[in-house]
Amino acid sequence: MERWKYFCDHYFNFKAVGLGIDVSKIDDFDGVFAKIDRKAIFKEMATLESGAIANSDENRMVGHYWLRNPAIAPSDDLKRAITDVWSNLDRFVYAVHSGDICGQSGKFKNVLCIGIGGSALGPQLACKALSQKPRNKMALAFLDNTDPDGIDYILGKLNGKLDETLVIVTSKSGGTPETRNGMLEVANAYGQAGLVFSRHAIAITCEDSQLDRQAKKEGWLKRFPMWDWVGGRTSIASVVGLLPMALQGIDYKKFLNGMRDVDSLTRVHEKTNPALLLATAWYAATKGKGEKAMVVLPYKDRLALFSKFLQQLIMESLGKKLDRDGKVVEQGLTVYGNKGSTDQHAYVQQLRDGPNNFFVTFIEVLEDRDGQSMDIEEDITAGDYLEGFLLGTRQALYENHRESLAITIDRVDEHHLGVLIGLYERAVSFYASMVNINAYHQPGVEAGKKAANTILKLQKSILQHLRNNPKQSFSAEAIAKATESGDVETVFKLLEHLEGNRRIQCTRGSNLQQNSYQYLI
Amino acid sequence: MERWKYFCDHYFNFKAVGLGIDVSKIDDFDGVFAKIDRKAIFKEMATLESGAIANSDENRMVGHYWLRNPAIAPSDDLKRAITDVWSNLDRFVYAVHSGDICGQSGKFKNVLCIGIGGSALGPQLACKALSQKPRNKMALAFLDNTDPDGIDYILGKLNGKLDETLVIVTSKSGGTPETRNGMLEVANAYGQAGLVFSRHAIAITCEDSQLDRQAKKEGWLKRFPMWDWVGGRTSIASVVGLLPMALQGIDYKKFLNGMRDVDSLTRVHEKTNPALLLATAWYAATKGKGEKAMVVLPYKDRLALFSKFLQQLIMESLGKKLDRDGKVVEQGLTVYGNKGSTDQHAYVQQLRDGPNNFFVTFIEVLEDRDGQSMDIEEDITAGDYLEGFLLGTRQALYENHRESLAITIDRVDEHHLGVLIGLYERAVSFYASMVNINAYHQPGVEAGKKAANTILKLQKSILQHLRNNPKQSFSAEAIAKATESGDVETVFKLLEHLEGNRRIQCTRGSNLQQNSYQYLI
Repeated sequence: MERWKYFCDHYFNFKAVGLGIDVSKIDDFDGVFAKIDRKAIFKEMATLESGAIANSDENRMVGHYWLRNPAIAPSDDLKRAITDVWSNLDRFVYAVHSGDICGQSGKFKNVLCIGIGGSALGPQLACKALSQKPRNKMALAFLDNTDPDGIDYILGKLNGKLDETLVIVTSKSGGTPETRNGMLEVANAYGQAGLVFSRHAIAITCEDSQLDRQAKKEGWLKRFPMWDWVGGRTSIASVVGLLPMALQGIDYKKFLNGMRDVDSLTRVHEKTNPALLLATAWYAATKGKGEKAMVVLPYKDRLALFSKFLQQLIMESLGKKLDRDGKVVEQGLTVYGNKGSTDQHAYVQQLRDGPNNFFVTFIEVLEDRDGQSMDIEEDITAGDYLEGFLLGTRQALYENHRESLAITIDRVDEHHLGVLIGLYERAVSFYASMVNINAYHQPGVEAGKKAANTILKLQKSILQHLRNNPKQSFSAEAIAKATESGDVETVFKLLEHLEGNRRIQCTRGSNLQQNSYQYLI
Repeated sequence: MERWKYFCDHYFNFKAVGLGIDVSKIDDFDGVFAKIDRKAIFKEMATLESGAIANSDENRMVGHYWLRNPAIAPSDDLKRAITDVWSNLDRFVYAVHSGDICGQSGKFKNVLCIGIGGSALGPQLACKALSQKPRNKMALAFLDNTDPDGIDYILGKLNGKLDETLVIVTSKSGGTPETRNGMLEVANAYGQAGLVFSRHAIAITCEDSQLDRQAKKEGWLKRFPMWDWVGGRTSIASVVGLLPMALQGIDYKKFLNGMRDVDSLTRVHEKTNPALLLATAWYAATKGKGEKAMVVLPYKDRLALFSKFLQQLIMESLGKKLDRDGKVVEQGLTVYGNKGSTDQHAYVQQLRDGPNNFFVTFIEVLEDRDGQSMDIEEDITAGDYLEGFLLGTRQALYENHRESLAITIDRVDEHHLGVLIGLYERAVSFYASMVNINAYHQPGVEAGKKAANTILKLQKSILQHLRNNPKQSFSAEAIAKATESGDVETVFKLLEHLEGNRRIQCTRGSNLQQNSYQYLI
């Protein structure tokens, strides 16, 4: 009875939105909750929502909470911008579905989304989670990398169908190389197939970006706006997420309303605030330092991509070197997971017996399926097994002092996916407040991009040098010298990659260092 | 030059199998390597390969290394068993492809694999990584859970095509509930469609298992053997992995030869042993205690499932409470990751700036695609960008003292996938030796299963109680009492799940503990 009382005190049912949160298996929840400066958190959140420059590094407002409730946007222009997109989108999607807007040889049947990061994960998650029965209005494919073989794989699937494929290119600036490369390869494939790319393409991008100008110049079917006040990882409620959803046949308004409804709940200054429960639990489980990883286990196939979505939302938001006072803190919160009960057969062995370096978030979905289930045994369905595995695993982990959260939703549909994502977006905002970091920028990814650019320049010099000296062979060291690069290792790696693609030749002796690997063009 | 020399000393090229390993960015590699008791490791491995009872808990040999080289199996019976399967498999697949073995209305075009854990991840990885161009001989689908909605999703895709779908049910014992449930649901769907399930089904299972007997009795198309000396997570080289591969059109012999070839290299008692390099690097990066997580980043779309495969192989093998002397050690090695450069837009922000609680394994694939690439810029292809991002990210991480390994393969094909998996299987064996744990059992998953069974029994009692008292409503507390369960929380969770599936009714007041939630049938 003691245990049941404790459970009841730590189980919160938000029936209005179809959400339950159970923090009863996070040991120090109460202690941490008592210490949180809730006032400060809510004040900060109110400031952010009112249009303050919350992303001070990039001098930007942070407006993803407005996207599902334009009424709270800080200006009439912004309100109108948001609702205008909805009507544009509705008209456009209606015209595509009806065939009024079509490709060179008729109605569009497929959608190819080209984008990466925030421009891919949201639509991918929604596409899988909300897949319609018996079938979607259009079939969605995604190109989210600059891997040539991966591009060939997608183009192979669309082979002979490009004329009935609508291509969405999503890039804020138009300068994201993966997206631009994908677009160029796909445009090339359209050309090869004797088709005009621009008659099948639409752009989602910031006004007057490189991509926007290209789409305008080439007369693409449509351009939709992105805004600098929406970060990629929180862009699912913008046209980035909504357009693919709508094309697939998903009622995105229900999705937005789910987000809006949970947003109202997450503005409540009480314990009965689901996002505050989550952020507090994270803090309690990881001591506010990300000491443990968050393992995300939805017991539902449709939500298999949710952990991947959260990896981006949480790790990119919270993984920060400096706090807001400039102090080195190396904050973060590692997220991984796939789905239950499948993962029980993969790594729950380690979760139970191995290092206690994680806490689990179980996601329970009450409704097993549309309609009735057959009995597997008397009174037991396949879904009862799923539920039994969830409860049993949670129990077994707790017996071994492994903490966990449980989130319950009624079913996976537009509304509840909106609720889940809105909940996590706010929890990230709260947690960032608690640990005093900026959740809305990503300074750490620049270094890798810069290094990549230097490396690509180096490759050009290498090829130039080899071309200037045809049929002569050189070691990596000699080429590094000739190209005035101090970085022989990178020169070597580039040479190996060039040779692996038959663009240069190589003879390999036994000793790399003694220059017995020689390259020529 | 100093750096280049250091790199050369820590870069190993196994050109014979098309593999490179670079441990130059694992700081304490040399120190750890010097301390390893290599003799003991190799002795143990030789004992295992010669057929010792290496899985002493379950009193079983550990024979996955024989699967690709039956010549080393410890008895003629075993040798014959392995090669017999190959010829059976070849004949069967030939007959399926030619239409000699067919479904009720003709040739099989699709394969539905029902299995979970080791019976799913291997085939899923191979199916994606080795997908044929322009198309596979047969289209593969997977059912790897007991989620009713997930089952409906797969059955929806196969709607109207069940008669041309070959169903493979894979379960060692036949008792794995997820697999059995999936089979029953699928068999039911065949029945609903007026088809005879047994005429479309084959079983992969241990001789005389529950599943084996059922398949025999019902006259399924074929039964293939599983052996107790092959663990699920190392079963990809058994018929579990090979049959789906062969049906898809993959040359599984090349895959096996890749494994066999890398196996020879991993028996070399020198530094030039790729699996020893890997295991040493893991030990050095995590202090032999799994102190850091292994982030697996293949820069290749085809390998996007590799980290999921490794999660199982590594975490289930190494996540152990006790060492082999019975001492509590809570060993393990956390694995997560998806693919580059995609993940750079998700969580590399945290990897660079956040907690230094991981090391990365970059997987580089030299060949970008079949055939030539177009230039994106002068002398720069989409694949050069991919390579540039890999090198740039690795550099940027290292500048921030984040360690990483790099593995290079020539291309993703049957041979190289075999090399990669064989390499990791052996590295796991070595690492387990180094930290003195049993890598071949999984005692920790039993507790969750047992708890689940208790929970399912409890559900039956709950339904019985409500049926015995129709139209009367009860609180969770009252039902717990009536069913003699001390666990009100679980009773409550089961009631909520039952109600979520319209099997009982509920009225909810405001206070759970005060019994204001009442349930009736």
